[in-house]
Amino acid sequence: MELGIGMFGDNHYNDKGQPLPAGERLRELIEEIKLMDEVGIDFFGIGEHHRPDYAVSVPEIVLAAAATVTKRIKLGSAVTVLSSSDPVRIYQAFAMVDQISNGRAEIMAGRGSFIESFPLYGYDLKDYNALFEEKLNLLLKINEEDPITWKGRFRPALENQHVLPRPKNGKLPIWIAVGGTPQSVERAGRLGLPVMFAIIGGNPAQFRPLFEYYRALYKDAGHDMSKFEVGVHMHSFFGEDSKATADAYFPVYAAQMNRVGRDRGWPQFTRQQYEYGRGPNGAY
Amino acid sequence: MELGIGMFGDNHYNDKGQPLPAGERLRELIEEIKLMDEVGIDFFGIGEHHRPDYAVSVPEIVLAAAATVTKRIKLGSAVTVLSSSDPVRIYQAFAMVDQISNGRAEIMAGRGSFIESFPLYGYDLKDYNALFEEKLNLLLKINEEDPITWKGRFRPALENQHVLPRPKNGKLPIWIAVGGTPQSVERAGRLGLPVMFAIIGGNPAQFRPLFEYYRALYKDAGHDMSKFEVGVHMHSFFGEDSKATADAYFPVYAAQMNRVGRDRGWPQFTRQQYEYGRGPNGAY
Repeated sequence: MELGIGMFGDNHYNDKGQPLPAGERLRELIEEIKLMDEVGIDFFGIGEHHRPDYAVSVPEIVLAAAATVTKRIKLGSAVTVLSSSDPVRIYQAFAMVDQISNGRAEIMAGRGSFIESFPLYGYDLKDYNALFEEKLNLLLKINEEDPITWKGRFRPALENQHVLPRPKNGKLPIWIAVGGTPQSVERAGRLGLPVMFAIIGGNPAQFRPLFEYYRALYKDAGHDMSKFEVGVHMHSFFGEDSKATADAYFPVYAAQMNRVGRDRGWPQFTRQQYEYGRGPNGAY
Repeated sequence: MELGIGMFGDNHYNDKGQPLPAGERLRELIEEIKLMDEVGIDFFGIGEHHRPDYAVSVPEIVLAAAATVTKRIKLGSAVTVLSSSDPVRIYQAFAMVDQISNGRAEIMAGRGSFIESFPLYGYDLKDYNALFEEKLNLLLKINEEDPITWKGRFRPALENQHVLPRPKNGKLPIWIAVGGTPQSVERAGRLGLPVMFAIIGGNPAQFRPLFEYYRALYKDAGHDMSKFEVGVHMHSFFGEDSKATADAYFPVYAAQMNRVGRDRGWPQFTRQQYEYGRGPNGAY
C-alpha cells in the first residue's frame, strides 16, 4: 500500500476575501512537497483548476519545480483535465518531468469536475464524455507507440509522428480518476487502467459496489490481477487533538466549499455536514 | 547590458550515433543553470524542439525545474514556437514559472526554425506567417487584459475568460526572436516589442541594416525609446586557449550541423566554414 497526498494549490485569502498572489502559495506548496519527500510519503498529486481561488492551472509546472528538489516521491497530476487538453502536449510535459525526476512522473486523467477549462480551451460541454474517451485513447496510444499514427474527431490527425522526449522507462503510469459514475469504471476496467476513486462526500461504503464492479470488469477483460491497482482520494487534515484539529479546519473547509458552492448552487456548508463527514461513516 | 546563455538541450550520443536518454542531459542542464545563476549570468534561455536529437519539447518544464534551484537568473524560452502553440496554455505555464521564481520568467516567441511541431500539433505550414501573427496577437492581449474576449481563425474564441494564474508583476516580458526577415522586425517595431536577433551564420555586420530598420520602425510608431531593448543570440563555446577550444568544439558542432543538415539538404559542414565562423567577421 502506498500513501500519497494530493493538493489543489488553494490560494490564501486576505481579510477582505480577496485571493493573495499565487506565488506565495506555489512556493509554499513546493516546500510542502520537499517535506513529504523527506518524511517518506509515496506520492504527491496536484490538481488543475482555472479559477482565481486556485494557484495551479498547469499541474506539470509544479511537478517540474518539485522534481529538482525531491529524491523519491512520485509526482503526479490529480487530476489532469484530459477532456480539454492536448494529449500530445500533456505527454511531452510529463515525459520531461519523468526524465528530470528519474522516472517519478504519473498522469492521473479525469473528465473534469470543474468546467472552467472548456470555454478557455475552446471545447463544448455537450462533448464532455466523447472528448474524454477520444483523448484518453490518444494518450494511451502515445504511451504505447513511437512513432504514432492516429485519427480522431476533436484533434488534428497524427501521421507517423514522434512524441518526444520519451519517458525514462518507455511508458508513463496512467491512472483514471473516477468521481462515482459506472461509465468511468467500465472504461478503466475494459482498458486495464488503475483507478483512483475520489470520495469527497457521503459514506465511503457506498463506493463498494462500484469498486466490486470495477474489479469484476478488470478481471473479465483478462487483465493481470497481480497488476490490479486502485486508490482512494479523500479530504484530510491532521492534528494531535481531534476536536482542536476539527475546529481549526472547519472555517477553511467551509469557506472553500461555499466559494465553489456559489457557482454550483449548493446550500451554505454547515458544521453539521462537517461533523458527519469526519465521523466513522464520512468521507474525511 | 545583460549577458545570457541559451541552450537547446542537445542530447548526448553514443559511439554508434544513437542519442542517449534525455534524462541525463536534462539533469545536467539544470546543474548548468544553477551554476549560471551562481556566477551571475543575467538570463537563461531554452529552446523548443521535437526531434530525437534534442531533450526539450516543452521549454517551460525545464524553466520550472530550474526556478526552484536558482535565485536571480531570468528564465526564458529561446524560443517558444508560438505559431504551433496555444497561447492560453503557454501564458498559464509561464505565469506559473513566473510566480514560482518570484518574477523571473520571460517568453521569447518565434515562428519556428524547425518545423516538426506543425504536423505534431496539427497545423499547416502554408499558414506559417498568419499563425504567428494571430497567436502573437492573442498572447499580447492575454498579457494586457483579464478577463479577455478574443476571436481568431486558428483557435476557438474566448468570451470574457480569465487566464490564470496572473504573473507576479501583472505582465510577462514578451520578446520576439528574429531570424533575419524584415517582416519580423516590422511586426516587432510596430508593436513596440523587444527583438532578439538570431545570428547563427554569416557576418553579423550584415544584420546592421535590419537593426537600423527595426529601431526606426520602433521610434516612428511612437514607442518609448528609453524602453528600447534588443538582443543578439550567437553560438559560443569558451575555453582558455583559442586553438584547443576550437579543436574541441568542432566535432560537436559539425555533428550537430550535419544532423540538422540531413533534413534540410545542407552540404557537409567543413572546418573551413567553421574557421570563418569563428573569425572576426563570423557569427560564433
